[in-house]
Amino acid sequence: MRSILTILAVIGGLTPFAHGQSPELTGDSAFIRAIYDEALARGEAHENLRQLTKDIGHRLSGSQSAFDAMDWGQGVLEGYGADSVWVMPVRVPSWTRGTIAQATAHIDGTEYPLHVTALGGSVGTPNDAPLRAQVIQVKSLEQLRTLPRASVEGRLVLFNRPMDPVLINTGAAYGGAVDQRGRGAVAAAQAGAVGALVRSMTHALDTLPHTGAMYYQEDTDSVPSAAISTVDASWLANQLMEHPDLEVMLEMNCRAFPDVEQGNVIGEWRGSELPHEIITLGGHLDSWDIGEGAHDDGAGIVHTLEVLRILKALGYTPRRTIRFVLFINEENGNRGGKTYAARAQEDHATTELRYVAALESDAGGFVPRGFRIDAADEPTALIRSWSPLFEPYNVHQFRRGGAGVDIGPLKALTPRPAMMGLSPDGQRYFDFHHSSQDVFENVHKRELELGAATFAAAVYLLDQHLPSLGKAD
Amino acid sequence: MRSILTILAVIGGLTPFAHGQSPELTGDSAFIRAIYDEALARGEAHENLRQLTKDIGHRLSGSQSAFDAMDWGQGVLEGYGADSVWVMPVRVPSWTRGTIAQATAHIDGTEYPLHVTALGGSVGTPNDAPLRAQVIQVKSLEQLRTLPRASVEGRLVLFNRPMDPVLINTGAAYGGAVDQRGRGAVAAAQAGAVGALVRSMTHALDTLPHTGAMYYQEDTDSVPSAAISTVDASWLANQLMEHPDLEVMLEMNCRAFPDVEQGNVIGEWRGSELPHEIITLGGHLDSWDIGEGAHDDGAGIVHTLEVLRILKALGYTPRRTIRFVLFINEENGNRGGKTYAARAQEDHATTELRYVAALESDAGGFVPRGFRIDAADEPTALIRSWSPLFEPYNVHQFRRGGAGVDIGPLKALTPRPAMMGLSPDGQRYFDFHHSSQDVFENVHKRELELGAATFAAAVYLLDQHLPSLGKAD
Repeated sequence: MRSILTILAVIGGLTPFAHGQSPELTGDSAFIRAIYDEALARGEAHENLRQLTKDIGHRLSGSQSAFDAMDWGQGVLEGYGADSVWVMPVRVPSWTRGTIAQATAHIDGTEYPLHVTALGGSVGTPNDAPLRAQVIQVKSLEQLRTLPRASVEGRLVLFNRPMDPVLINTGAAYGGAVDQRGRGAVAAAQAGAVGALVRSMTHALDTLPHTGAMYYQEDTDSVPSAAISTVDASWLANQLMEHPDLEVMLEMNCRAFPDVEQGNVIGEWRGSELPHEIITLGGHLDSWDIGEGAHDDGAGIVHTLEVLRILKALGYTPRRTIRFVLFINEENGNRGGKTYAARAQEDHATTELRYVAALESDAGGFVPRGFRIDAADEPTALIRSWSPLFEPYNVHQFRRGGAGVDIGPLKALTPRPAMMGLSPDGQRYFDFHHSSQDVFENVHKRELELGAATFAAAVYLLDQHLPSLGKAD
Repeated sequence: MRSILTILAVIGGLTPFAHGQSPELTGDSAFIRAIYDEALARGEAHENLRQLTKDIGHRLSGSQSAFDAMDWGQGVLEGYGADSVWVMPVRVPSWTRGTIAQATAHIDGTEYPLHVTALGGSVGTPNDAPLRAQVIQVKSLEQLRTLPRASVEGRLVLFNRPMDPVLINTGAAYGGAVDQRGRGAVAAAQAGAVGALVRSMTHALDTLPHTGAMYYQEDTDSVPSAAISTVDASWLANQLMEHPDLEVMLEMNCRAFPDVEQGNVIGEWRGSELPHEIITLGGHLDSWDIGEGAHDDGAGIVHTLEVLRILKALGYTPRRTIRFVLFINEENGNRGGKTYAARAQEDHATTELRYVAALESDAGGFVPRGFRIDAADEPTALIRSWSPLFEPYNVHQFRRGGAGVDIGPLKALTPRPAMMGLSPDGQRYFDFHHSSQDVFENVHKRELELGAATFAAAVYLLDQHLPSLGKAD
């Protein structure tokens, strides 16, 4: 196998390092080892996550607790020694789940309670009153479109296609099922249905409803849409075979309020050598309003804060300016990410600032397995050349695509920043995702710390080895 | 990068395949994909683990439940269609924890209960009565040897060196601390102490005592030895700084009974082409007597059974004879592994049978990360050449050493078998290991299934591609 030195020399030849010296493998190895030591022996990520999840709790955009989390994040960034800390204002939606979300199946005069919760953004049932209707099961939006209108009209549509268990990448299984959640209500309304019940997005067979974003369309009636647990969805489907006329009563009083001004919390550590080149890293501070948003995305927030703490503790002097961003509103609108990218566009157009790299942690606090890379071929090859540096930490995956939702809109910048997403193991993620079980107790201290160290090592390597754009034109 | 075909061709050139054709990468890829599909879509490992842990429970060597587990294992092997199933008799120790294992710290007239349990093999306190003594803390066996006898004599020794948190490999951290558990009692007795308290082998700061094997020495008095939880060990050490004269009362009525005849449960699937060449795979059926032995090693047992089920379900015809072995007594003696290897030695000496490969799963039911390889250079290179076949399943580690305790004694065979140990992620393992929390609920269904598939793929590849020894001399 070619040595890492050879690989780095080749890449170095293609894209000379602006700071006039080759990267030193020994130095990189030793510094990365120090990063992991600091994270594992003196880590604060776990305690920070406890504060965020237990002292504050879940943090839906627009809520008081999201404001509390913004204050908390500013305090930690200041305490860890960021040069400046500010809030970039973002107007966010303000939807509330309300106090009632319940459903029962009515079969031959007997009522069976079902485990449901409102999907995020759903309207309540008409007049917040119980809605009672027959049910039609489909496995896909496409199947729904093929059904005769009479078989759907006036009914609730049960979208019941499970996540595919044989896909190794659970994110791909999620992606293959989540259209039912996002677009099910619109498809149901267009077919004449009065509402939608969507099988929860998890492999697990359990009784937890998993919420998540759903969307309406201007030309289509807004009908209520609820998540139903996988056990209940399967049970209901079985009951429908014997009792096709069974009815479900659904009652929800969720609703939207006017937008609220919140914002991205930003801490900046100014670069010593290339201060106009910005490396952005972050996760999202908002969460769904059940559970505690521990994996999604409390983990990404404390990973981000821990990178600052670790690099400061090791006496690091950043070459570039590093921005630690606690994004708002990833879950239901991504307005934080869009606002940040719009500002970056403006900076590129009107200032010398250049957003050269961006990193995100928004895939949970599980043991790190690698990175998702969104970058042109050359920086992708550079990032992959670091693989031997990560091998001692069991970090092996360097796959392309899907670096992160918050940083996603930065792709439109010219020149395009090199983007990396932390990729933790995903097998357990959807057990917790958007459910009442996404709590602090389900995040493992060492796994969280290993994620923080891996994230910090990537920031360090990008700062050290990403070729400079030179002075802005 | 050199292609897998090139690598296989090179290895094939060194060690031609006995069955006269090169391995077909496409065929291997497709078959391995079918193995994972079967495990994830129709897997029975999780249900088998439920039966083993919930219907039977923990299974200490010599216990009735170990007999029950042997019966259950025979039934599953028969049900899955092994050609023959038998028990290889093994005399095992019969130690029992008894009914009492308690300790309290006495400080200034106040009693503080401590979380302790007997280490496996320990004697009880003298006459099963409470033993009360002052405590001396040490961080190592070496440190104990340097202390003046007067500071140890008549006391309990608290061995309180934690597992090193900065080691990425938690097994290495365990290995770096477990001498305190295994040899602490002997070292304490030699220094004049009346007993030992050993900090539990876990990174977690919690109140669970973790048991495990300890040993006596013929020339040294047997003094009682107990595991103490990490929280209690740290608390006691802090108290000792202020109250060096504090006393601990320890009471245990554990004891050893005469050996019992149990055995290794073996299912055999006869080879079609090289039936005298034996591939052994297994885990251990015995467990410690707290918790349910779910990760250690219920997971390895159901992995082993699932390999048989999967390969049968896929219509596989093994070239070699495959032995599915549910070993007995790994935890406190390894007499099952030693007996199996002694029989293999005899077979090598007196029959045409050759034990060409052995695989073990005894590192938990977590997401698989790779393999530990104990083999000569050529088979090691062959096994490593399969790495691209495992990449789609996020199985990346092919490190040498530590394939498994049960199969370990087979190393002494000539020729030496190629040995592989399944290597799951280890970050959570010592949270549960040998504690009351090693239960079914702490094993994740998909992670368990991925482990079974990875194990099955390794068996398949060894059967297909390991060069034959040819007809025995």
